[in-house]
Amino acid sequence: MSASSDALQLPAFNPDDLPEVRGSGYPEPFRSRMGDRGKRRLGDACGLTQFGVNLVTLGPGGQSALRHWHDREDEFVYILSGEVVLISDSGEQSLRAGMCAGYPAGKADAHHFINRSSRQAIYLEVGSRIDADRAFYPDDDLMFVDDKDGKPRFAHKDGRSY
Amino acid sequence: MSASSDALQLPAFNPDDLPEVRGSGYPEPFRSRMGDRGKRRLGDACGLTQFGVNLVTLGPGGQSALRHWHDREDEFVYILSGEVVLISDSGEQSLRAGMCAGYPAGKADAHHFINRSSRQAIYLEVGSRIDADRAFYPDDDLMFVDDKDGKPRFAHKDGRSY
Repeated sequence: MSASSDALQLPAFNPDDLPEVRGSGYPEPFRSRMGDRGKRRLGDACGLTQFGVNLVTLGPGGQSALRHWHDREDEFVYILSGEVVLISDSGEQSLRAGMCAGYPAGKADAHHFINRSSRQAIYLEVGSRIDADRAFYPDDDLMFVDDKDGKPRFAHKDGRSY
Repeated sequence: MSASSDALQLPAFNPDDLPEVRGSGYPEPFRSRMGDRGKRRLGDACGLTQFGVNLVTLGPGGQSALRHWHDREDEFVYILSGEVVLISDSGEQSLRAGMCAGYPAGKADAHHFINRSSRQAIYLEVGSRIDADRAFYPDDDLMFVDDKDGKPRFAHKDGRSY
């Protein structure tokens, strides 16, 4: 695809031309749990600010995130290839290419994907960007706080910073 | 896919299970120009309110929209299959599966897709939902106004309603 993508100019672009971001903002021991996960930041690449769009590749054993929900931000995911297991309060569900899921802001149904297959899965994730959003992690001693007077940070559930 | 999609429960779902919305909110003679275009409203189906996500099928000759830009809303599109021609101030560019485009709010680069191929194209479109957004159509005698004291409406460029 690179031959033709060389010709694309904004507002169009080819995700193959973007760097893949590895790693996670979580503190350890949570970061390592994400496993083989890479993201290309499509929304940022074309100057969007109101929502983020990431093209995510998730290798066998990888996780999209810790199981979590946001109190102010809507999220949406669409599977492009491979298969992932969605874990939420509805239990476990296998999602294949063409299937999707959405998580309205403030709905306390914590969710994440795990790739339990033997091949890579690829999906799009979209999330709005709202000030003072918080994320809750029912399975882990972690919370994400975006205080007005400080920078966003991860903390223990008792408020101590990591 | 329907056999397995029967088992999906929110927050997951299969777009195949949603109704396809045909037609357009444009007044004539603009509406007819959209041609063979159908949308499945994925974001609405899972209760999202901060942005819309549509799965769009565009038949040969179909158009995504009139060429336009929004003053307050970010937009993003990702091609899933087939090929479309993006028309913007950068000229004409062919986009195939895996390519994408994004349009930041307030950037006066009017854009749309036309399907000039002989087969259906499918893409995802994402757009934020912001009050009092306006859309501008440089090629046509049309504007979209969302006045504070009225309901959103299409008008001629001189302000007369259609």
